Amino acid sequence: MRSWVPGANEPGCDFPLNNLPYGVFSRAGEAPRCGVAIGDYVLDLAGLEADGHLKVADAPVFDAPYWNEFMEMGAEAWALLRKELVALLQEGSEHRASATEYIILLSEVVLHLPVLVSEFTDFYASRHHATNVGTMFRGTENALQPNWLHIPIGYNGRASSVVVSGTNVRRPWGQLRGEDGPQFGPSARFDYELELGAIVGSPTEGPVTVAEADAAIFGYVLLNDWSARDIQAWEYQPLGPFQAKATATTISPWIVTAEALAGFRKSVPEREVTVLPYLEEPHATLIDIELEVDLERDGVTALTRTNYAEMYWSSAQQLAHHTTSGCAMTPGDVLGSGTVSGPTREARGSMLELSWGGKEPFETHAGPRSFIEDGDTIVLRGHAQGDGFRIGFGECRGTLLPALDDPYVRPK
Amino acid sequence: MRSWVPGANEPGCDFPLNNLPYGVFSRAGEAPRCGVAIGDYVLDLAGLEADGHLKVADAPVFDAPYWNEFMEMGAEAWALLRKELVALLQEGSEHRASATEYIILLSEVVLHLPVLVSEFTDFYASRHHATNVGTMFRGTENALQPNWLHIPIGYNGRASSVVVSGTNVRRPWGQLRGEDGPQFGPSARFDYELELGAIVGSPTEGPVTVAEADAAIFGYVLLNDWSARDIQAWEYQPLGPFQAKATATTISPWIVTAEALAGFRKSVPEREVTVLPYLEEPHATLIDIELEVDLERDGVTALTRTNYAEMYWSSAQQLAHHTTSGCAMTPGDVLGSGTVSGPTREARGSMLELSWGGKEPFETHAGPRSFIEDGDTIVLRGHAQGDGFRIGFGECRGTLLPALDDPYVRPK
Repeated sequence: MRSWVPGANEPGCDFPLNNLPYGVFSRAGEAPRCGVAIGDYVLDLAGLEADGHLKVADAPVFDAPYWNEFMEMGAEAWALLRKELVALLQEGSEHRASATEYIILLSEVVLHLPVLVSEFTDFYASRHHATNVGTMFRGTENALQPNWLHIPIGYNGRASSVVVSGTNVRRPWGQLRGEDGPQFGPSARFDYELELGAIVGSPTEGPVTVAEADAAIFGYVLLNDWSARDIQAWEYQPLGPFQAKATATTISPWIVTAEALAGFRKSVPEREVTVLPYLEEPHATLIDIELEVDLERDGVTALTRTNYAEMYWSSAQQLAHHTTSGCAMTPGDVLGSGTVSGPTREARGSMLELSWGGKEPFETHAGPRSFIEDGDTIVLRGHAQGDGFRIGFGECRGTLLPALDDPYVRPK
Repeated sequence: MRSWVPGANEPGCDFPLNNLPYGVFSRAGEAPRCGVAIGDYVLDLAGLEADGHLKVADAPVFDAPYWNEFMEMGAEAWALLRKELVALLQEGSEHRASATEYIILLSEVVLHLPVLVSEFTDFYASRHHATNVGTMFRGTENALQPNWLHIPIGYNGRASSVVVSGTNVRRPWGQLRGEDGPQFGPSARFDYELELGAIVGSPTEGPVTVAEADAAIFGYVLLNDWSARDIQAWEYQPLGPFQAKATATTISPWIVTAEALAGFRKSVPEREVTVLPYLEEPHATLIDIELEVDLERDGVTALTRTNYAEMYWSSAQQLAHHTTSGCAMTPGDVLGSGTVSGPTREARGSMLELSWGGKEPFETHAGPRSFIEDGDTIVLRGHAQGDGFRIGFGECRGTLLPALDDPYVRPK
């Protein structure tokens, strides 16, 4: 599909007409509002709506700093908006003249969190990642625990920790295992985790099936689940990760809709044990998304090259499991896929795995690394490759700032 | 302190003038709004405010279904409101005539959740409880894990699971360990956990000290952390409890303010190991609150009799630890204390402990129990005992409904 918006038909463009990801943007001095990325531009949906060129509800919904209100309108509204946007932005559109004044260069805007994150849940769904980490934390024999092939294992994270791409992350202090007992100090093993985040768009009440869960997912973002491995190793028994994961979780600013990714579905890998019926795939629920992580410092070093389809459990299966207890999910719930590690070394989705717990430091353009060093910038990217186009996610970027000298003295 | 409001000066009244707990109420057909409990009545703060008898801000804050907006005004505003309410409600008040039309019998109102729960964190801070549960789950040798005496261990829960006293709770389905592999079925070991919930009233940015954390706590509620022990036992390794705790968490409707409880402070028990400085108590941070749990069925059976001062870690210490990573806390954050078990059998705060994992069923007026049975009503109560008065919490009540025959068929 071709668009009249400059850049949209370029090969390698993340935001062709086939994509139409949703975000929240502002220019200096303006209030954040909803927009859609197309080519080198963002289309100002709030402006279109205010001037009567777009109407999805009786009251305005795009003049808001989050997509939650629109998500709550439900799947029919989602499909309708996409249809209208395609009509508006396609080559030869009769609306081109009126729409032209609502496109703004991406280089001129600031991007914000696209959703008000109601709650954040993080999973642990790559067999390769779970095996790698399990081996390091608990040894080969207990690496993959008995429940792992039966349950999409997850834990609740902190919604207040979720920040948008470009936000700097401060190296945290925490309680660490020491030779002479525990110490309180800056984390020395701070890491990234390459994940995909699923955004719940429709509320659930009571348990839902995998098919219903799949339909409730509005879209996907890239997600970096920053992790302090030394804090985690000391704190995580018996109730799971807590402060190790609470410093920050960075997501990419554009929600790539489930509809845009519909043509890239892949089934989960063959089950190694029979899964219970409530977790069976009704149709392909994974997605073929190429994922990469780079270290940007003194040049660009490739860290991870993998694919979301490597996961053992899909977001839809995770969401279905999440509701089994009757747990209500709400629009704005974010589900982290878990680290997307593949079977090869280059497909490892964290430095913990790349350096094998620090035992095998690896080379980068900025020198050897076992974990992230102060000043390092970590960038996640991803796309689904179509025939002559790509459905891209843009960037999920963050730079690690040094720990404070004294965490109880507020930085100016 | 004596009040002119009927019931407030009765011995055994939960809501004397010394208390003044905050809640949200409505009468049939009315919108929920903020009020304060006094004697047998609730004082309608929204009504007082609307008619110009009470003014805490330029715009109305009590005509809201939650206390969050008022909490955000900060500790000075909290102290000022309490002062004004005492002046209004004390015996001999000059405002009695004007205030009289704003008191409504408690028996005529419905009580709602008093806060919009932004996030929910649950801790594990009774040495007795942790030792009991640890022994049952992992054996005597690994009962108390090496980090427990150093870290206020906690995990993130689900805010969407928090409901107000009086809400029925549906026995959940879940994935359970079975003889021939995991099964999906109704939980057979559904339990209560007696806890105190601390309501964060002031936001934090970056790590805060225990003293700062203590000052950020607006007040306390009773909290029943309903738990499916069979789901928990199968799912909790390695990332902690997830669906086992997501069915419901019931809180009492009245927030008893930290100020009302100021005279009942107690220090945490002597440390068994030196704690790190960031967790040291700057002043007494526990509270002498007598807590009890009853089973109401075919009469009343006492289940638990304990005291919040039994805890090893206080809410202030937990909150301080919660912020070490830089994790931002927001008004409406609820921190569960963890099950408040004491050293004696009657002080065990869950059926798991009372029946020792089901091995020692105990007698009730409704027959023997190991866990909660369908139709059982669990009621938590608590109060701090003053000289001739009590600071009471009211009730935290819930009845267990039977599991659905098929969780994927929505109940009418």
